[in-house]
Amino acid sequence: MRSEEGVEGDDEFYMRKCVELAKKAIGCTSPNPMVGCVIVKDGQIVGQGFHPKAGQPHAEVFALRDAGDLAENATAYVSLEPCNHYGRTPPCSEALIKAKVKRVVIGMVDPNPIVSSSGISRLKDAGIDVTVGVEEELCKKMNEGFIHRMLTGKPFLALRYSISVNGCFLDKIGEGALDIGGYYLKLLNEYDGIILSSSLTDKLSTMSISIQPIQIIVASNAQQSPNLDLTNTVEESSPKVVLCIKKELVTESTTSNCKVETVVLEKINLDSILEYCYRRGLCSVLFDLRGDIEDLEVLLIDGIEQKLLQKIMVEVLPEWSTKDEKQVPSMKWLESKAVKDLHSKQAGGSILLEGYLECFDI
Amino acid sequence: MRSEEGVEGDDEFYMRKCVELAKKAIGCTSPNPMVGCVIVKDGQIVGQGFHPKAGQPHAEVFALRDAGDLAENATAYVSLEPCNHYGRTPPCSEALIKAKVKRVVIGMVDPNPIVSSSGISRLKDAGIDVTVGVEEELCKKMNEGFIHRMLTGKPFLALRYSISVNGCFLDKIGEGALDIGGYYLKLLNEYDGIILSSSLTDKLSTMSISIQPIQIIVASNAQQSPNLDLTNTVEESSPKVVLCIKKELVTESTTSNCKVETVVLEKINLDSILEYCYRRGLCSVLFDLRGDIEDLEVLLIDGIEQKLLQKIMVEVLPEWSTKDEKQVPSMKWLESKAVKDLHSKQAGGSILLEGYLECFDI
Repeated sequence: MRSEEGVEGDDEFYMRKCVELAKKAIGCTSPNPMVGCVIVKDGQIVGQGFHPKAGQPHAEVFALRDAGDLAENATAYVSLEPCNHYGRTPPCSEALIKAKVKRVVIGMVDPNPIVSSSGISRLKDAGIDVTVGVEEELCKKMNEGFIHRMLTGKPFLALRYSISVNGCFLDKIGEGALDIGGYYLKLLNEYDGIILSSSLTDKLSTMSISIQPIQIIVASNAQQSPNLDLTNTVEESSPKVVLCIKKELVTESTTSNCKVETVVLEKINLDSILEYCYRRGLCSVLFDLRGDIEDLEVLLIDGIEQKLLQKIMVEVLPEWSTKDEKQVPSMKWLESKAVKDLHSKQAGGSILLEGYLECFDI
Repeated sequence: MRSEEGVEGDDEFYMRKCVELAKKAIGCTSPNPMVGCVIVKDGQIVGQGFHPKAGQPHAEVFALRDAGDLAENATAYVSLEPCNHYGRTPPCSEALIKAKVKRVVIGMVDPNPIVSSSGISRLKDAGIDVTVGVEEELCKKMNEGFIHRMLTGKPFLALRYSISVNGCFLDKIGEGALDIGGYYLKLLNEYDGIILSSSLTDKLSTMSISIQPIQIIVASNAQQSPNLDLTNTVEESSPKVVLCIKKELVTESTTSNCKVETVVLEKINLDSILEYCYRRGLCSVLFDLRGDIEDLEVLLIDGIEQKLLQKIMVEVLPEWSTKDEKQVPSMKWLESKAVKDLHSKQAGGSILLEGYLECFDI
């Protein structure tokens, strides 16, 4: 990490500000990343912006627009390397050069190996001082879905389930998990899609705030059509996609509502589902092990074997379960897998454990 | 909570200091509680002390001795109500009165219902200003074993076991758990006794620091004598007690070592074991579900049914276990039990969950 003399301490502060701005668009930018930008002159923030949505201008454009003439000789902080290509918008590298900024501080390089570092080179060629890697881990973590999708061609997949303190699988989420500030509601805001055995019911239909992950409902069981709660398909609810092998499985009445879409796949497995999610532009998908989990179990075992699963989130509910002998679906024939960076946080009366099954590095 | 004007903020500070002092004797005071005391004059600590061991003077005596004449008109902070009876030592209430302290701040009242508040009354009668209940929760938490023993006539019982993130029972503890600063070593320091299926092996025998919980090894299985690792019974290791129904179960060779004691009970269940532990003066016992847990399983189920279990500690190891289908021993015929105050902390690469099965209030 290179840095100008004496401003080392400040760089982290402004980069964290970028991340904070970027996260205003949490769950809204896919297939693009979340990006935040601040323009700093003489220790004052003179401009700020974030990328709100695919198709909209990038963070740098908003921040430069906000700064106006003050951008000249200022330092621009941006959480992701400025783009250097003509897409839906002109390259941000050119915009920064045109605005005559003196220095650019970048959180992380572009994870796309084809264009990576070309924005940095362009800025340097124009005589701009460039610092790379400030609060890099924070910037990467925020876009773990985007980065994974870029590097692997598949969405980032997180598995969620609940257990009791004595390790029994529980088909429920904790009290308050769906309230404002609850961890489950946050997940629904954060993830682009959610794989379910049936459509989300709970209190979601009556929630006043917007919750928009695409609900991916799996209908691989030929014996019955999926459990779609159509009372939920009001204007505000999130779109529902039913994945099935034969269209006949999903009855006309089930899909007559315009918010439910039926997609026929050649075969239903986690790989084909993620392939579909990728094509649809999703960066991150939550695999929620709840409800009628028989179909999901098969998908899960399949998915772990194929290393399609990156993250696990376990809600440990505050109970010693004695009635239910059910276990988290698992396999007997595989070796145990290490979980990296296992950490925990309080989530109401429950504890939420999070860790990674596969490492992704850029 | 009553308090003199303007010193409210300070009271908490000095009481936390008392708790800190008291904890210097962690694992050493049973059947007595841990108690700390500081004497404060004109905003300065002029004396401090803690109760080091049963039979030794109380915390107040050490603190008053340390303060000398400066105790006059000073404020005495003590984490537990000063005793008011002649036991092995004269009453601390009289010592405080004799030293002419102006004010006494008490963390919690004596949990013994027979003598509770008599120390406070004695001080008030002598014209001393008394404040009760400063950092009360902290003071209670530190002595949860002592309080439980006093109120129920049984030691406080904590269950410990390990699971994988997917809820499988694991017969191991995490890496570093037995190192200096590791959670398991802390438990061994903290608890007066530990119920095991066989004697502690691991690295304990080679540890240079003193680890002294009494190892209670259960030999209820008539088919075989318990697994006692006698290579461990060196001078520094903790005393071992083998509990059995018939003395013949434990062979002469097993117990020839003076550090191993054989105790014959009429029947072996958690109640009889705790009864024995109580008589031996233990305040807290750790039930460690490791090793050959067949005998322990029966005890555990028995214990939960009889509500003998207060606390659970679960180490969630950083692995997705696939080979082992074993579950935490449980019962099918009982209702689920709520776990109170479930919280978590990082313990090396693992997460340690802690919660309470039964509420104890004084």
